[in-house]
Formats: sequence, C-alpha cells, structure tokens
Amino acid sequence: MSLKDMGEDGITEYLARKYSTEDPRVIKAIGDDTAVLSERGGSVTLATTDILIEGTHFQRDLTTPYLLGSKAMAVSLSDIAAMGGEPCFYLVTLNLPPLTEERYLKALYRGLDKQARKFDVTLTGGNLSRAESISISITLLGQMPASEVLYRDGAGAGDDIFVTGHPGDSALGLLTLNKYGKSAITRGPLKAQIRKHLEPEPRLGIARVLAQKKMATAMMDLSDGLVLDLDRLCRASSSGAVIEAAQMPLSGALRRYGDKALNIALTGGEDYELLFTAPPCNAADIIETAKECHVKVTRIGRVLPASEGLFVAGANGKKLKTDTGTGGFRHF
Amino acid sequence: MSLKDMGEDGITEYLARKYSTEDPRVIKAIGDDTAVLSERGGSVTLATTDILIEGTHFQRDLTTPYLLGSKAMAVSLSDIAAMGGEPCFYLVTLNLPPLTEERYLKALYRGLDKQARKFDVTLTGGNLSRAESISISITLLGQMPASEVLYRDGAGAGDDIFVTGHPGDSALGLLTLNKYGKSAITRGPLKAQIRKHLEPEPRLGIARVLAQKKMATAMMDLSDGLVLDLDRLCRASSSGAVIEAAQMPLSGALRRYGDKALNIALTGGEDYELLFTAPPCNAADIIETAKECHVKVTRIGRVLPASEGLFVAGANGKKLKTDTGTGGFRHF
Repeated sequence: MSLKDMGEDGITEYLARKYSTEDPRVIKAIGDDTAVLSERGGSVTLATTDILIEGTHFQRDLTTPYLLGSKAMAVSLSDIAAMGGEPCFYLVTLNLPPLTEERYLKALYRGLDKQARKFDVTLTGGNLSRAESISISITLLGQMPASEVLYRDGAGAGDDIFVTGHPGDSALGLLTLNKYGKSAITRGPLKAQIRKHLEPEPRLGIARVLAQKKMATAMMDLSDGLVLDLDRLCRASSSGAVIEAAQMPLSGALRRYGDKALNIALTGGEDYELLFTAPPCNAADIIETAKECHVKVTRIGRVLPASEGLFVAGANGKKLKTDTGTGGFRHF
Repeated sequence: MSLKDMGEDGITEYLARKYSTEDPRVIKAIGDDTAVLSERGGSVTLATTDILIEGTHFQRDLTTPYLLGSKAMAVSLSDIAAMGGEPCFYLVTLNLPPLTEERYLKALYRGLDKQARKFDVTLTGGNLSRAESISISITLLGQMPASEVLYRDGAGAGDDIFVTGHPGDSALGLLTLNKYGKSAITRGPLKAQIRKHLEPEPRLGIARVLAQKKMATAMMDLSDGLVLDLDRLCRASSSGAVIEAAQMPLSGALRRYGDKALNIALTGGEDYELLFTAPPCNAADIIETAKECHVKVTRIGRVLPASEGLFVAGANGKKLKTDTGTGGFRHF
C-alpha cells in the first residue's frame, strides 16, 4: 500500500493513534492547527511547522523570492491565528541550490521579515542547506492563556458556522497565474486574487479577539479547501454540518465564473481564512467584532448532529449535488 | 554573487547582523546550536531545527527508513545536548514522493520514536507534504535553567579543549558505505563506523552534567568537522586555539588509514560528538564525569588568545602542515 492509498488524513490519524501521548506537559499533540504545550502560570506555548516546496507548493518562475518569504511566514502565522494565539518566535529551514544568487536569499528574508515585523515576531534561528530545488520551512512558536485556546473539537450542534474573507479567491488567483504567467501579478483584472494566493493575510487580529472574548466554540484555518477542512473540524467535534450555498461570500471576481464559482469556493485551497463556529446568541457580537477588525465575516451554515453528515444546501434547503466529494487538496 | 561565493558562515553572519533582535524574551537568536528563549521562573526554552535531504545529506539506497528517522532525531537531540539542555517536544516535517510505500513511512517514524523514547521526548505535531525527493526536518524544543546554558562564546585563553568519542569515525563510515554499498552496514570490519554515520548517538547525558555542574565554559556539537567547528567556537569566543595532533583520539579503525587518519579526524563531518572547553582546574572532575557517563572524553588542545589563530601542533609543538585549510563541510 502506498501513501496515496493511505491518504493524508489516514496517515495523520495513524500517527495520532500510534504516537498518542500521556505526557502531562502536552495539552494537544497531533491533529489541530498547532501543538499546545503547557507552561507555568496558566499560559501555553503554541508550536507549528509548515513548508513550501518548489514544484509542490510553488513554481519558482511564478513568484518572487520576496513573495515566497512573505507567504511562508503567512502560512505559519495563520496556524497560530487558528488557535487564537499570539505569535512570538520563528526558525527558518531554507534549502537552496548552491548557485542561487545572494539577492534571492536576501529578498526572501525581507519577505519573511516584513510579515514578522507586522506581528512582532522575532527570528531566532534556523538552518541552511544545499538542495536541488528550493524549499522553505518555518517553525513558529506562539503563546496565549490556556483557557482561551480555540481547538477544532469544540463545535456543538446548533452552532453557526462562520468564515472570514472570500473563500475561493486564492484558487482563482492560482488558476489565473498558471494561465497568464508572472506578468499577471501586477497587471490584469485578477491581480487582487493572485496577490491573495501569493501573499495571504493571516487573520491574527480578529482571531485573538474571538479567543479572548470566548465568542467561538471551535476554529481552524482554511488551507486545503472549505469542505475538506470543515469535514476535519466536524470529525474533531463529532458533528455534522450544512453549508448554505446562498450564503457563501463569493467575491465579484469569482461570481463571473458562473456555475463553477461555488465549487471553486468550496474546494479551492490556500485561502488561509478562518473557519469557526459559535452559538447563535454570539452572532451579533461577532459581526460587531468583525467590523471593528475590518475583516469580512460571513455566516455560511450550521453545525448539525453527526448523524446528518456534512452537506451543501441550496436556497430551498435541499441537498445540492456539487462536485465536492473528492474536493480540496490532499497531499497523498 | 552566488551563495557559494558568500559561503555558509558568511550567510549566517549576514543574517545574524541584519536581523539581530532587541526582543527581551530572546537570550540567543542566530549563531549557536539552538535558540535560547527566556521563560518564567529562570528557565529557558531551547529551540532547534534540522533537515536531512535526499541527495544532500543521504542516499535513499544507502540507508533504511528506520535509520533515517533515527538519525534525523539524533541530529536535533545533539543540538540540545550542545547547550547542556533537556529535550522535551518535537515536530516533524516529512516530504515524500506520493508512491512511497506505507511501510517506509511507518519505519521512519519507528526510528524517530526509538530515539525520542530514549530521551523522554514527545511527538507533538508536524506536517506532511508530497515532494519529488525525500526530506525530513525535525524541530526540537528543550528546557533548562537559564543559568546553566553552555554557549559557544564562553571559552577563555588557557582553557583545555575536550572532545567526546572518536572524531572522524562517521566520515570513515561514510567513505566505506559509499565504496561497498548498503551490505556493509551489517557486514565487514567497519560496520561500527558506518553505524556511527547512520545512527549517531547524541551525548545528552554527559552534556547535561557538564552544564549542571558548571564544569565547562563553552560547548557545541561537531557536525561539519572538528577544525571548522572549533573555528566557529573560537570566533564566537574571540579566541584562538591549538589542537595537539598527538592527543587526537583516533579510533583503531581510523589509524589504519595511516597518514590520512589525522586529516579525516580533523575535517570529517557528522560526528555529533561534543566539543567543549574548560579551565584546567576542572580537568580531573571532567575525566571522572566521563567515566560515570561511560563516554570517552579526551583533552585535545588549548584555547589561545585570538592573535594566535587556530592551528594544529605536532608532537614537538611545531605547527603541522595539514590539509585542513578548506576542510570541513560547508553547504555553500
């Protein structure tokens, strides 16, 4: 059996089961956006690691080293956001061909540094290796009060489901980038979507408020597509969910794709938006918070009992037949 | 200018200068074996990340997934040892071709887990990606009292220089492995050296005692070759050093290489032994500690004023002409 047969989630479940821990210092190991490690004084350390690999996650000729650095950092910052935490320190593992130009490395670090400064995160080390292709891995450590951590497993039947931003825009940006090439980054009608793909904005501000004010019950970030990621949240919370198609916040640019738009929004990866659940009594406070944080937040559905499964409903409440069964990005 | 022109140490120095931090939570950022982050109660968190890349650090057909996992963990454990700390938690970034067999992944994790268990380290998460070639990156977090951390910069003129184990044996193992192939792992006269290369033993036990009892002044682990690494320690400590060739603990296997033996011991990489300095008054205690920890420790030279530079001396005290000027492994 190959890893492809096992599947990405199958592998993660195997590892979480086989290497489950009873270490009292570990509050959460495998299976959430970050590890959660207990500290003295009711505080926890959040730890996450992510990698961008040439050929798998990006094409060298379809981005710039500055954008690549910026994205690598944003992806990890988004994981800390998904717990409601504050990022603090990072380490960089950078693998580059030996004939890489000095200015490539410097621009890449400028991209990392730009995001890091924005959120008061400090470079504390890393590792530099020679390799045939480019890859960049970030390990990010964060902190927050233990009582405020937003796990994936807290959603309850009846909760509203919310999402930030416009899911699908990153996928639309990637489609456009692949079609028109690097020049479309600065020119053309979809440059905002391409920018969204190449330089996503981690939602740290609103995430921190949601955690601090205990408004949400479960949270994660969208990396592999809304349906696939919501399915993970539902499994963790032992629940089902309905996504109300009519509520999906499709961007104007995405709407122009007609029938395909909804599907792109439901399955497109790398949005790095927040997906979270909250009891209906918190809805007004959440919308108010979103306004204060200048982030678009939309209620897109409801958490259901596990027996109902996960489905997408049309305007009439009926289950839609959408092509999302195998949607979302899976590495294996 | 390419990275090759800049050189590995040149790049590290550039990054340490350009991204130096005044963050009061950061005691040590770039430039030592691990980052050192202050915690409440006089304790520090140690953070280190390392990667093994197919083609750069290993050949798939010259190791096993079990040994690869074991080595990846040992390399990171060795960094925590180099500070005198206790390892606690790790995250794994694993990149594999999609057609990799399930048993390959499982064996790799068994290798990681074996080392982790030995030192009471807990798997807390990571990241799994599809890639063309195999690479495995470990981020390891450790802890220790702030007052006991052994940095590279504490060596003073007059200190003795010590090394654990038999430097050069890992390089000899690699030479043998490349010459005779995988079958030499289990057969042949140099299988101990090959094992040393494929599955180094992190020196956590003695390192912790040296730190706790404040016997050493500076410490690091040997990854890129004794002369190159000692040069880094000397630069950090603003000192020079003499290595006394006659004192070098060459293994019996290495001695058989005659004239080449000393050079292999001085420049061979991936020993993951400890290199440390201590005032002569501690020498007897150090030798006693080594016995208790069942680790071979040898005094190999002396720290000198910076003006003396770094050199190797023959039995008569004269500078030896050895081929170490460009020795040691540099990625760029």
